[in-house]
Amino acid sequence: MPQTTTSGPATRPSLEEVFEAHEGGKLTALSRVELNSIRDLSIAYTPGVAEVSRAIAAEPGLAKRYTWTGRLVAVVSDGSAVLGLGDIGPAASLPVMEGKAALFKAFSGLDSIPIVLDTHDVDEIVDTVVRLRHTFGAVNLEDISAPRCFEIERRLIEALDMPVMHDDQHGTAVVVLAALFGATKVVERELSSLRVVISGAGAAGIACANILLAAGVEHVVLVDSRGIIHRDRPGLDGIKADYAALTNPDGRTGTLQDALVGADVFIGVSSAQVPTEWLEGMSDDAIVFALSNPTPEVDPDVAADYARVVATGRSDYPNQINNVLAFPGIFRGALDSGATRITLEMKIAAARALADLAEPDLSPEYVIPSPLDPRVADAVAAAVADAAIGLD
Amino acid sequence: MPQTTTSGPATRPSLEEVFEAHEGGKLTALSRVELNSIRDLSIAYTPGVAEVSRAIAAEPGLAKRYTWTGRLVAVVSDGSAVLGLGDIGPAASLPVMEGKAALFKAFSGLDSIPIVLDTHDVDEIVDTVVRLRHTFGAVNLEDISAPRCFEIERRLIEALDMPVMHDDQHGTAVVVLAALFGATKVVERELSSLRVVISGAGAAGIACANILLAAGVEHVVLVDSRGIIHRDRPGLDGIKADYAALTNPDGRTGTLQDALVGADVFIGVSSAQVPTEWLEGMSDDAIVFALSNPTPEVDPDVAADYARVVATGRSDYPNQINNVLAFPGIFRGALDSGATRITLEMKIAAARALADLAEPDLSPEYVIPSPLDPRVADAVAAAVADAAIGLD
Repeated sequence: MPQTTTSGPATRPSLEEVFEAHEGGKLTALSRVELNSIRDLSIAYTPGVAEVSRAIAAEPGLAKRYTWTGRLVAVVSDGSAVLGLGDIGPAASLPVMEGKAALFKAFSGLDSIPIVLDTHDVDEIVDTVVRLRHTFGAVNLEDISAPRCFEIERRLIEALDMPVMHDDQHGTAVVVLAALFGATKVVERELSSLRVVISGAGAAGIACANILLAAGVEHVVLVDSRGIIHRDRPGLDGIKADYAALTNPDGRTGTLQDALVGADVFIGVSSAQVPTEWLEGMSDDAIVFALSNPTPEVDPDVAADYARVVATGRSDYPNQINNVLAFPGIFRGALDSGATRITLEMKIAAARALADLAEPDLSPEYVIPSPLDPRVADAVAAAVADAAIGLD
Repeated sequence: MPQTTTSGPATRPSLEEVFEAHEGGKLTALSRVELNSIRDLSIAYTPGVAEVSRAIAAEPGLAKRYTWTGRLVAVVSDGSAVLGLGDIGPAASLPVMEGKAALFKAFSGLDSIPIVLDTHDVDEIVDTVVRLRHTFGAVNLEDISAPRCFEIERRLIEALDMPVMHDDQHGTAVVVLAALFGATKVVERELSSLRVVISGAGAAGIACANILLAAGVEHVVLVDSRGIIHRDRPGLDGIKADYAALTNPDGRTGTLQDALVGADVFIGVSSAQVPTEWLEGMSDDAIVFALSNPTPEVDPDVAADYARVVATGRSDYPNQINNVLAFPGIFRGALDSGATRITLEMKIAAARALADLAEPDLSPEYVIPSPLDPRVADAVAAAVADAAIGLD
């Protein structure tokens, strides 16, 4: 069931239209109960509510049932790595977080509120979210810059008994893996035989490397602004040092151009532009995912001359790799199943579910479902919930 | 326009009904924008939203206009003094905070979200709310125990450029003052001549003393569990010492019974029961506000034998003193006017607006409008906004 997702420049929204849509913000919080009479008040507020509070005080697990936290995702950001805008701070990031919360509602039915933090300090961010723990049922970390995002996510996963996921890492990685499942079917290759080059070793790049390795890709090379990451590169520390040990088994060195020689798959998750001629070094039936937005690392029309499958982050080209394919279903599956973690297995199950949806109609122009395919969130949620069973 | 607010025991909600109404919680967060097409996404999310974020980064004041913070009140609690339940903690307090948020929406049109904090430490609470400052446009502190509530409110007012109010203090105080305006008209007395006894020197008691003194009451006596508060009482410190200096000009000592001798007004804001015979010492045309819930300090039917005006916190007796008369309009007036503080003048203006609504129909059984009187929030908001003009 491939869907057309292209939209020509004629329908591009004007600035006026964008600002008008944002007037007053994009969210509203409504009551799910009637409040028209004194009797209504005595149910929803005092004295009735006291019985519900008393019940939760006696049995804390009831909070999920009798408050909105059972389906409430906090979209948490410090505004340090917002879209292509960089570190614009919490206030300016809020329209993005409101948009994300609105997407949660529209695509998964979950409730969501933005929480923006006026600090970039890792300890303060962790402490703050931990203190807020009873306010929501899950945490979607958003637009937090690397490398702080890795530590913040790790510490929050440890501290909180609820699903926590940095979407810029794992949402992207899940959809990339799903599209790679589809693309490898199209080119009739096995994951294990692929040579994959990832340009960008920030949040998305590291997470892509992680999930690809877990899914069975054996040759992954990470490239950052200083070139190929390899074990002997001076000055490596933190997570890049970890991934230097896990990737690049042949010990390649050099530039992105060097990395692309003989590569089967290029995954661009930095804004670094790739000269077309560098693609010439890739193998036959190459796969190019140029995900930088709004300007892909390489023009997708040009890339099509060198690659069998081309995907971008844009809605006006085929094969849109969009996080909205993943995060709504992942969080709903996790919350539905009562999972207190989002494991690697759950993420791979999400990618597999997306690939299964695309499978019957696979083609070079359709390796991943459309973000508006109405089957997506339910399928992902079911797969994630299944993978969560028996955990914890 | 007096409204009947009594409801007999026949219509009292059952426990089943209360829990059923709380199933899944009482709030939901909805998108105010369409999200049905790729074009919709390009307006509400990337790439369109980037322009809005960029505009706010350049001019931070635009956040109020282009996000929901211009009308968003956070209901913040640590769950330390919840209704009559005491320190039940953040998770168990959440149904109350959801109810409060639902009341905000129903009575003022403002959006509201609960924020419950897993700490009772004053520094941590203040730091956390300050870090969240760009997440909302106003702070309603709720159910935080005395004396911490005083310091937390004071420090947040200092730290934040937005309306901050601890409703257990000032919501109660505003409605008490409004009812006292009405009651003194009924008994034909001036505020300045009244001898007022307040039983309870916690959040509500201190705030009532404060607003009554500001409104022109000259004789206020505060009584706590150890008796009358006076300057020479050993062991007084903090805010009680401050109010020992501001109240009790005659230097009375002794018990609540002693305090009531010759008193014109009794305001009960603790659960301490008052034997009927203690009311015998009050002056003619006494005024009794027995506000403890669900059990008033003195049976209102019995109190009516000793007092000309009796008010309670209950909906099944006349003259219900309910915070919902105040907080929705106060916050809406403050946010509408762009006020960065809720001043004493704004609170007194709110009380005056409530009294003005009741004035045409004043009687011993109607000294304050009904909580369901549809004129209330607009009238309070307008008066508060008026009083805010020219501030800051």
